Amino acid sequence: MPKSNVQPTSEWRRKLHEVIYEADTPSGKLFDVILLIVIIFSVILVLLESVPALGSKYSEEFIFAEWIITIFFTIEYFLRIISINKPTKYIFSFYGIIDFLSTVPLYLTFLLPGGYNALLAVRSLRLLRVFRILKITRFIGEADKLSKAIKSSLPKILVFLFAVLVISIIMGTLMYLVEGAESGFVSIPVSIYWCIVTLTTVGFGDIAPVTPMGQFLATIIMIMGYGIIAVPTGIVSAEYTTGVKSQAPTPGKNPNYRHVNTQVCQNCHAKKHQDGASYCHECGYSL
Amino acid sequence: MPKSNVQPTSEWRRKLHEVIYEADTPSGKLFDVILLIVIIFSVILVLLESVPALGSKYSEEFIFAEWIITIFFTIEYFLRIISINKPTKYIFSFYGIIDFLSTVPLYLTFLLPGGYNALLAVRSLRLLRVFRILKITRFIGEADKLSKAIKSSLPKILVFLFAVLVISIIMGTLMYLVEGAESGFVSIPVSIYWCIVTLTTVGFGDIAPVTPMGQFLATIIMIMGYGIIAVPTGIVSAEYTTGVKSQAPTPGKNPNYRHVNTQVCQNCHAKKHQDGASYCHECGYSL
Amino acid sequence: MPKSNVQPTSEWRRKLHEVIYEADTPSGKLFDVILLIVIIFSVILVLLESVPALGSKYSEEFIFAEWIITIFFTIEYFLRIISINKPTKYIFSFYGIIDFLSTVPLYLTFLLPGGYNALLAVRSLRLLRVFRILKITRFIGEADKLSKAIKSSLPKILVFLFAVLVISIIMGTLMYLVEGAESGFVSIPVSIYWCIVTLTTVGFGDIAPVTPMGQFLATIIMIMGYGIIAVPTGIVSAEYTTGVKSQAPTPGKNPNYRHVNTQVCQNCHAKKHQDGASYCHECGYSL
Amino acid sequence: MPKSNVQPTSEWRRKLHEVIYEADTPSGKLFDVILLIVIIFSVILVLLESVPALGSKYSEEFIFAEWIITIFFTIEYFLRIISINKPTKYIFSFYGIIDFLSTVPLYLTFLLPGGYNALLAVRSLRLLRVFRILKITRFIGEADKLSKAIKSSLPKILVFLFAVLVISIIMGTLMYLVEGAESGFVSIPVSIYWCIVTLTTVGFGDIAPVTPMGQFLATIIMIMGYGIIAVPTGIVSAEYTTGVKSQAPTPGKNPNYRHVNTQVCQNCHAKKHQDGASYCHECGYSL
Repeated sequence: MPKSNVQPTSEWRRKLHEVIYEADTPSGKLFDVILLIVIIFSVILVLLESVPALGSKYSEEFIFAEWIITIFFTIEYFLRIISINKPTKYIFSFYGIIDFLSTVPLYLTFLLPGGYNALLAVRSLRLLRVFRILKITRFIGEADKLSKAIKSSLPKILVFLFAVLVISIIMGTLMYLVEGAESGFVSIPVSIYWCIVTLTTVGFGDIAPVTPMGQFLATIIMIMGYGIIAVPTGIVSAEYTTGVKSQAPTPGKNPNYRHVNTQVCQNCHAKKHQDGASYCHECGYSL
Repeated sequence: MPKSNVQPTSEWRRKLHEVIYEADTPSGKLFDVILLIVIIFSVILVLLESVPALGSKYSEEFIFAEWIITIFFTIEYFLRIISINKPTKYIFSFYGIIDFLSTVPLYLTFLLPGGYNALLAVRSLRLLRVFRILKITRFIGEADKLSKAIKSSLPKILVFLFAVLVISIIMGTLMYLVEGAESGFVSIPVSIYWCIVTLTTVGFGDIAPVTPMGQFLATIIMIMGYGIIAVPTGIVSAEYTTGVKSQAPTPGKNPNYRHVNTQVCQNCHAKKHQDGASYCHECGYSL
Repeated sequence: MPKSNVQPTSEWRRKLHEVIYEADTPSGKLFDVILLIVIIFSVILVLLESVPALGSKYSEEFIFAEWIITIFFTIEYFLRIISINKPTKYIFSFYGIIDFLSTVPLYLTFLLPGGYNALLAVRSLRLLRVFRILKITRFIGEADKLSKAIKSSLPKILVFLFAVLVISIIMGTLMYLVEGAESGFVSIPVSIYWCIVTLTTVGFGDIAPVTPMGQFLATIIMIMGYGIIAVPTGIVSAEYTTGVKSQAPTPGKNPNYRHVNTQVCQNCHAKKHQDGASYCHECGYSL
Repeated sequence: MPKSNVQPTSEWRRKLHEVIYEADTPSGKLFDVILLIVIIFSVILVLLESVPALGSKYSEEFIFAEWIITIFFTIEYFLRIISINKPTKYIFSFYGIIDFLSTVPLYLTFLLPGGYNALLAVRSLRLLRVFRILKITRFIGEADKLSKAIKSSLPKILVFLFAVLVISIIMGTLMYLVEGAESGFVSIPVSIYWCIVTLTTVGFGDIAPVTPMGQFLATIIMIMGYGIIAVPTGIVSAEYTTGVKSQAPTPGKNPNYRHVNTQVCQNCHAKKHQDGASYCHECGYSL
């Protein structure tokens, strides 16, 4: 018997933990699906509320629905805290903070009377909670490989973006001098903004050069942007190719599939336990 | 002798099937070319009819031409049904439905008197029929490899696009708060639309940030878009490279060329028979 | 001694051929440099002539300069014909036609009195002549590899572009129905134009959706464009990677460098002779 | 003892050299950090000064701050000259010239009374100094690999960009003829500018085709741009993949990490000395 220095929790807390944090049992899966629906519904609500025609007409219905969602999230938040042995581990984890921010906006409007609108941005952060639910599904295999490729090419892309920034500042200053305020290049920061719009091939056209010299410089910037867009793409591609190869998938086995155990230790919040493991590999607590 | 539980069809139906569904015989090829011309002609007709200057002037000619095409497609549709043993297999197949939708619009105008215009979209679906004709040519070798690369990288691209959507919703909400209705960011859905326009580097410029803070946020969104456009490209590239290698083309032989047998079983609609096969590999019906 | 059935040409024709068609001798190089300068000068002239402020003010000077260039090109064209044994081989080659089109515009203005402007496009074709000069330099090593990668991935890109076209036509029809003429979607061809502008992430913004439904469809088109831009890139990248590997460059040797012999057979216009070859590998004519 | 033909410099010059040119000692690191802050502060100053609302209100403060920065840079510039044995090597090096240009603008305003504004571009060049500071950190490992990939694919990209230019000139002339001055295609150079805006998928929309023929040509240009954007990306990707492989990183060792010795010879300005080297590998001067 493992010498766990933590007392086993009561059966209902153990059950609750399984439902809320894991997706192995039918009730755990059901909870995830309901939560997913509520989150998406709450985000759609934020979007629709901002549409002037709808927001003013159905303002009461929107606030009512927001209250229901807030109460749902409040209950869920407390259940999460109750069902875990070391609540602080959860509260100060990334998703713990997201959960708190998802719950709190409506309560804050009592403190900040006019701030209902300003809390929209906070409410749209609820969408991030979707990632947790995706995390505990098999879907994660793909995302994992993807994020690895991004992570390993991130430093290169950062060096590259820094170079883009330097080009933008120098070319932006030049464009400001060449074009001047009449064409919309009212200051160097605005010129830099235009330069990035152009280098990234977005090209809004709200500001556009009108003098021959300015158009010539713009041409150079665009061709530079065209040439250098290749660099980050090439990097990610190369990283990804290397990554795919180094995995060396066994033939006849789908390399994208990776069994993910959704068990989470109730005591220390540790993840990625082995299949059939009876005790947490970090704190020895029985799963 | 194979024990086929289906009676052999009469000679003319066998012949008809060969002409309509296959491209091995001269008459089969001729049929495909004529069909291709009629399809492209019918789509061009839809395009030209929508041009105000032409649509009103030659409205009678357009309707007359549409009648001819509809009759042609109607006859072809019935021939396809007649010449096959199990018509339901064809009728509810992807191309069976497309063929039906290509034929039916003009008849529907009797039921929906004002709906001639609304059926334009349905009529433009005729273009999809072109793919069937291409399918039975050697051209398909390329498309096949292409679609394999796309299919194998689709889950990764979907995960990626989901991340793009989440970024768009969060950044769109921020832009809505920062810029407000005066700059065109009238609601969060519109802001998200703008965000996707920017992230994908399309940049219409119908909506553009005007406040310094908004332009700063826009810069971040654009640089993010610039950085992450690399990811799907890298994925497809890596998949494709891996795919090309795993095929291991025999030297001196064009790996892009792949013999495609255009035979289609008259009984069960099965495809991809071996060269020289006398009986369908799925139902034992003699080819 | 090779049994060449062609009489050796006189010394001055041999010399002339070397100067005009080859770049091995100092005079041959000088000729190329002069020609390059005249071509670029003539194209710059076309550009400047079209600028309203310059074109009307210096119209006489422009016509005078054009006459000098035309005379220069005329002399060069006849020298090229004289110095080769089988002039028809040159005249109907790609560059022979380009050379002819470069020379002829000004003469045509006598036949087409008002056509001076319409011949601008023909005059700008002179730029294509630059490629011949580049061809006979070592610079070509790069371009050769590049064009090989493009050529081998062209069929795939064509299949892909065809799919893009089909998407554009179907989505263009939908946008025409959803947005209508008020937003600028005046006809299906214009909608298709907009669709391609959007799919290719160019995004002029001259036409932009204004209805929520139209903006939603636009979002889908953009995300599709974003996702599928990866495909041709991935293809070229994969082709190129494969190409680079199959060359297997010897270590310590720059694989990009390839000795290109600029000798051209005076008799049959054949190229790519071996170093030190004394007779043409195609017609046995002494070089 | 090495036979160095250079007299050892006095202790304080040796110390000064270590602080200014190297980053091994705490004081050397501190100096770099301070310099980095001053450079970034001076560039931000240039940006803010150009904002009309700020520039006019705080013009005195801006000039005062600029004086402080100029004096700081002046002192630093002279210390760099003093602490090195062969100052000309530094003065005419790339960074020596950048340092000089960073220092001199304010002094030049005495010579060019109205030139304060025109020197903005020169002042923004100060940003380039940041690269030197980055150069002497470990961050450089990434940038080095990146610049190698860019350098090796540069000739290919140049060939490619030349082709893009030729396409732009020919298509630009055509668009000028087809669209004419009413749609904004006022001259061939402007049409070429538009063509590059379109080919690079920037698409400002300040100029856009309005005639059906012009829109058709634009469609072709865009699809070409879409197809050929793949080429430089594929090239860089392939180069990078090859580069990554040829390095063959030892397993278990981060291949991106490369120890960079920041020692700089005080005598001959040579870099990249081996760890623990006591004498310069170029001039034998003791480090």
